[in-house]
Amino acid sequence: IWNIMEYTRPGRKEWVNIEECYHRILAEDLVATIDIPWFRRSPYDGYALVAGSTEGANSVHPVYLEVLGTIGAGDHPDIEIKPGQAVKIMTGAPVPEGANAVIMVELTKEIEKNGKTYVEIRRTLRDGENIVQVGEDIKKGEVLVTKGSVIHPGVMAALATFGYQRVPVMAKPKVAIIATGTELLEAGEPMKKGKIRNSNSHMLRGQVIRAGGEVVFYRLVKDEFAETVQAVKEALERTDLIITTGGVSVGDFDYIPQVYQRLGAKLLFNKVAMRPGSVTSSAVIDGKVLFGLSGNPSACYVGFELFARPYIKALLEQKNIYPKKIRAVLGKDFVKANPFTRFVRAKVRDVGGVREAEPLRKDKSNIVSSLIDANSFIVLPGGTRGFRKGCQVDVLLLGDEEGAPNWNATVASGWV
Amino acid sequence: IWNIMEYTRPGRKEWVNIEECYHRILAEDLVATIDIPWFRRSPYDGYALVAGSTEGANSVHPVYLEVLGTIGAGDHPDIEIKPGQAVKIMTGAPVPEGANAVIMVELTKEIEKNGKTYVEIRRTLRDGENIVQVGEDIKKGEVLVTKGSVIHPGVMAALATFGYQRVPVMAKPKVAIIATGTELLEAGEPMKKGKIRNSNSHMLRGQVIRAGGEVVFYRLVKDEFAETVQAVKEALERTDLIITTGGVSVGDFDYIPQVYQRLGAKLLFNKVAMRPGSVTSSAVIDGKVLFGLSGNPSACYVGFELFARPYIKALLEQKNIYPKKIRAVLGKDFVKANPFTRFVRAKVRDVGGVREAEPLRKDKSNIVSSLIDANSFIVLPGGTRGFRKGCQVDVLLLGDEEGAPNWNATVASGWV
Repeated sequence: IWNIMEYTRPGRKEWVNIEECYHRILAEDLVATIDIPWFRRSPYDGYALVAGSTEGANSVHPVYLEVLGTIGAGDHPDIEIKPGQAVKIMTGAPVPEGANAVIMVELTKEIEKNGKTYVEIRRTLRDGENIVQVGEDIKKGEVLVTKGSVIHPGVMAALATFGYQRVPVMAKPKVAIIATGTELLEAGEPMKKGKIRNSNSHMLRGQVIRAGGEVVFYRLVKDEFAETVQAVKEALERTDLIITTGGVSVGDFDYIPQVYQRLGAKLLFNKVAMRPGSVTSSAVIDGKVLFGLSGNPSACYVGFELFARPYIKALLEQKNIYPKKIRAVLGKDFVKANPFTRFVRAKVRDVGGVREAEPLRKDKSNIVSSLIDANSFIVLPGGTRGFRKGCQVDVLLLGDEEGAPNWNATVASGWV
Repeated sequence: IWNIMEYTRPGRKEWVNIEECYHRILAEDLVATIDIPWFRRSPYDGYALVAGSTEGANSVHPVYLEVLGTIGAGDHPDIEIKPGQAVKIMTGAPVPEGANAVIMVELTKEIEKNGKTYVEIRRTLRDGENIVQVGEDIKKGEVLVTKGSVIHPGVMAALATFGYQRVPVMAKPKVAIIATGTELLEAGEPMKKGKIRNSNSHMLRGQVIRAGGEVVFYRLVKDEFAETVQAVKEALERTDLIITTGGVSVGDFDYIPQVYQRLGAKLLFNKVAMRPGSVTSSAVIDGKVLFGLSGNPSACYVGFELFARPYIKALLEQKNIYPKKIRAVLGKDFVKANPFTRFVRAKVRDVGGVREAEPLRKDKSNIVSSLIDANSFIVLPGGTRGFRKGCQVDVLLLGDEEGAPNWNATVASGWV
């Protein structure tokens, strides 16, 4: 029922130098532009020869082939090997015309005779033996990495191999963060009685970057209707999606929805049956999606990971945009009842080959400290009473890049 | 026996704006600069009052307290609550002087009488009930995140909470990449017979960035002794560590060691009993470490992850600098014998709650394509003959940030 994904748009493509592409998202399939290897290559140091020249050779009756010279890696061989001849060849060097087999240097011996060099060979070689054929590793035209993949070091090696000096990547979605709340101070401001520092926007900035976006608009507004409407209006012109935090506590419960209304936005949802983050809302205006997250740090964090992150990944045209779910053993009792689906900040560790998920200290929704150590959420289904240490639970991994293709793979289907 | 780590140096610290700190390494412990909350805070919308005023109150005998006004989040209350009085209070707002309990708004009713407002209360409250006390979440002086930790979104929230507008982070170690080989072309160059494109330096650049370093010096040199010596000399002046690739094939086996010798470097090791990557070497000069990696992409990749990455992380003063090892089920037969410890490029997946590691296609040491999909190495101990699908194997995770504290946690101790 989360209809956010109806409002994704094709992302923008841009070109960056290969030196700048690490961890960007590939905007086109990476296709092999040449066969690899693109010439017949020797896999060893040895001698290239005509297999027929070794017919009948064995340790009792060796054959002797004249050595015409040496081909190093990177050399361009302008010779043709004829029966009775051989050429010394280095690993990675091109096998010259006429040759159809390579013998490893360790199995041979060089001798001098009448001012000429010969190689002694004591075995019979097959046609094609020890030659890496053209296209044996990769065929020209083969799709090696698909659009939407993260560019990691292995992909960079492939890009270089196929001459992608410039790399097509998805432009980073431009995100606006608008924090609301009269109680908020900026990180640099001195403390004032009754105020707290605005931590959500900094946390969200990290989450946006981790999801593959960039924050290009940021504003801290008082809990004032007109100021918030103005900030959202400006953000709409400059960004691809807008995230607000706060403006949803009881006194002003309908505040953000009112902002949506004033702007003529279509409300997608304004309550979610989950803890924390029940006041998460979303709306769409002119095809752009707005996320109204809670002002409470934990609820804000969860709301972002479950809703905004997949949306950013959709704009990046990635495939598995939802959080990856794994099974783990609950590391300690969690006795609270769960009238609604609960996302418990947790740390997953490997304990003797078994993955164990431990709920983090002080799991109250207003506490920053549990976010410091969390690498996952334990998902406890709504309508359950409590869970004992040792039972199996679903866990969503944070910051994971593999992802999942749909919501059913992420949470119990009853919830979505 | 890998004595590389004797040659680490204290890293450099630098300060960045909190907006720029995502994924950097914290250079100091993050200490709570204030108590959180730093004033007595209401966790709900409700009424703040003196608990004693509700003595004996129940549904039959309610008490009525005069409501003095409303305190919103961010307000500075300049009132003192006396017995018989109350003040309406919003979530997150400071509890005023005199008050020592809060009752949730849902449990109350407001009434008007003689032009004054009263709140009806039908239960007895305890001293301290529904008040978040000063320092209840976090005590001033508490160490929240230790030096060497990766700054992720939760850490950013904590930094903002404690007013770190400027954040102390470890400067990124400066890395030189020197690729050697007459057969190498740059990614942008047209193909020439016998040549291949230089993929290693681009792959290494990605690996360096992933490890937390930055490449500040790059050169492609022919297999020439003097040119290589010159490049290493220049790099020594400008970087913290130097990585060379190539220059170690049979024809020029002692080439990089000769470069070390010419420069007066002390050889740390120049062979490793592993596949791929047996020709990995290392030396130290003036306290700076040089890594001589194979020109073969897979061997180069493995050599970096096992030796250069931990070294970079040591310069970043991180704690768990070695690759994280997990246990997984082998996803298909691997029948090759392993005279030496073998690191097989593999993909680890979650299959029905069990982690399965599948060796990737074409595990020959000269093939880039297996690096594209790899997220791990399967570690097969030396002296073993082959492994069957379904058996338990050790797996090192690539790009993992948790890491391991020592080599014993990473590979079988017989190997190190």
